Amino acid sequence: MGHQGHYFAAGPAALPAPVKQQIQDDILHYQDTSISILELGHRSEAFTNILNQARHYMRALYAIPDNYQILFVQGGATLHFDAVPLNLLGSYTCATYIDTGLWSAKAARSAQKYIQVETFNGLQSQAGRQSCIDPSEWVIHPDSAYVHFTPNETVDGINCANPIKSPVPVVADMTSCLLMRELNVADFGCIYSGAQKTLGIAGLSVVIVRDDLLDRVHASTPELCRYDLHAQHQSIVNTSPVFACYVMQLMLQWVSEQGGVSAMVAASRQRAKIIYEAIDANECWSNTVAPENRSVINAVFQGQSQAHVEKLLTQAEACGLTGLQGHRKVGGVRVSMYNGTPLCAVEKLADMIGSIRL
Amino acid sequence: MGHQGHYFAAGPAALPAPVKQQIQDDILHYQDTSISILELGHRSEAFTNILNQARHYMRALYAIPDNYQILFVQGGATLHFDAVPLNLLGSYTCATYIDTGLWSAKAARSAQKYIQVETFNGLQSQAGRQSCIDPSEWVIHPDSAYVHFTPNETVDGINCANPIKSPVPVVADMTSCLLMRELNVADFGCIYSGAQKTLGIAGLSVVIVRDDLLDRVHASTPELCRYDLHAQHQSIVNTSPVFACYVMQLMLQWVSEQGGVSAMVAASRQRAKIIYEAIDANECWSNTVAPENRSVINAVFQGQSQAHVEKLLTQAEACGLTGLQGHRKVGGVRVSMYNGTPLCAVEKLADMIGSIRL
Repeated sequence: MGHQGHYFAAGPAALPAPVKQQIQDDILHYQDTSISILELGHRSEAFTNILNQARHYMRALYAIPDNYQILFVQGGATLHFDAVPLNLLGSYTCATYIDTGLWSAKAARSAQKYIQVETFNGLQSQAGRQSCIDPSEWVIHPDSAYVHFTPNETVDGINCANPIKSPVPVVADMTSCLLMRELNVADFGCIYSGAQKTLGIAGLSVVIVRDDLLDRVHASTPELCRYDLHAQHQSIVNTSPVFACYVMQLMLQWVSEQGGVSAMVAASRQRAKIIYEAIDANECWSNTVAPENRSVINAVFQGQSQAHVEKLLTQAEACGLTGLQGHRKVGGVRVSMYNGTPLCAVEKLADMIGSIRL
Repeated sequence: MGHQGHYFAAGPAALPAPVKQQIQDDILHYQDTSISILELGHRSEAFTNILNQARHYMRALYAIPDNYQILFVQGGATLHFDAVPLNLLGSYTCATYIDTGLWSAKAARSAQKYIQVETFNGLQSQAGRQSCIDPSEWVIHPDSAYVHFTPNETVDGINCANPIKSPVPVVADMTSCLLMRELNVADFGCIYSGAQKTLGIAGLSVVIVRDDLLDRVHASTPELCRYDLHAQHQSIVNTSPVFACYVMQLMLQWVSEQGGVSAMVAASRQRAKIIYEAIDANECWSNTVAPENRSVINAVFQGQSQAHVEKLLTQAEACGLTGLQGHRKVGGVRVSMYNGTPLCAVEKLADMIGSIRL
């Protein structure tokens, strides 16, 4: 059995200790049943309760209006890169995609199979500093079925503000920031998020979608990608990924018990402050994102040399701090801090970031 | 904590006790890592090992030829109801679907979105007995991209023989019988199976597909449904459902250790013999499937009256034998016996089936 470590990977991400303990307790017998949570049927009363509770917590956490459906869909954000245009195109011929990094660009590329994609560059660079263009200045093609936006880009560690008003429905990939960001759901047409960063484990996603958008689905949409079918069948379209739904319900319950989204946001800012202060205080490290657009979830930085990076990664790993390699496209170091990341681990890592010399 | 029960549901299904125990051990720390199996990254060496081992066991269990890919794909069989036509249509305009029950009919209905579907009724009824038409007598449209077939129909409990030779590639939905049936993979173009019955938990499927069929994919196929991409990227196209893959690897290892497919088939026949003998010996019950086509996996039977059914279900539940309700479309009783179902549980249930009187 391994020692107690701390895990900073971008996803699959760290889960809170009490959630892991609960799961371990339910592996042989789920609650008062005689079967494992791994064997629980998708048409059982116990599973209906799991989905109902998950919906209940999610609706309460974001005060989601009644005209929004909360759907649990197999697959992650990549599935929705295809599902979003298939479900939301209707009789429109184009959609606008705000390009802020690797993930928004991937979403746009997938959509090109189905529609004309109008891309707007959501980033600007001044004096070596990258920043986001304010959503009020986005140029959205007037014929767009929707405008697609990725608030938190995990590869470069960039965070953009939410749009306040938009002439067309805003669709947001919140895979790396749901439950870690304040938002007014009524400002969005559709929000989707893979589960493996802030909501549990990979293989499941949540979709929050406005009722009136559900009749836009394309006839040749695979059944499992259809938001309208998930809405009609309370998310049990086929054999649901029961275990992943169960973990999501535990995560939503845990977040609620910790004080909800505002508590998660406060904890997230506190973690980020500690890490960025350590980066800025040590000239071995550089981060080129404008302070107001630095991601509080994924802090990405480069070393003066690769040797700095390797020294930090080696030292960290020796202390049980893992998952810190930068994304393979950009290198460097990435500190991903989701809701399951404890402050003590962040402080330990910050000390190390601050003290690295060659 | 609940008592030791036995679970006969059609899926999600019972897992072998040692597999559940191993999973419980890995929830807090996976092997010698300091993290949970629930947190393991899809780009980690440990996860690559999990997939490699799963592929290795699967290839060995069925002596799968080198010109077949073994793919691990998010979603279950329902995903493949769409993915099969999208991946295998190529320049063909039609496909033949053998209709043997609810699941094959669902597969055919999904395919109609993309292609002309030619349906062949694979069942016949004589003197109140249902039987399967021998695959040598199937009428396959000569322009078919493939012929689709569901060997084991779980709702009615019907099992059909494998085709030996076919002029077009045979595609089989083996969701309820993979690892519980002898088969010569070279007789098939593509085999797919959701994991939650014989391979672990819901949210994952395995696809065994012949290399030369991979270039038939339609341009507008969602990325996660593309077999060619899964083949190119060793099944890591996006964040893989790590935990479900891990459970599948444990199941494949367990089956191998038990003696492989032939041992599973022998155990399956033994279970089925006990249950069908109990059904046949008690005139309260009726099963109208010809003996040679009775599913050894899902035994489905009706009672003389609903009261008989209810009495059995109530008595069984009181003894911890659960998951026995027939599918909601046909009612009655269904005894699903997958690889995790122990013989002692089958014997206990058979005694009960044999002794029910009103």
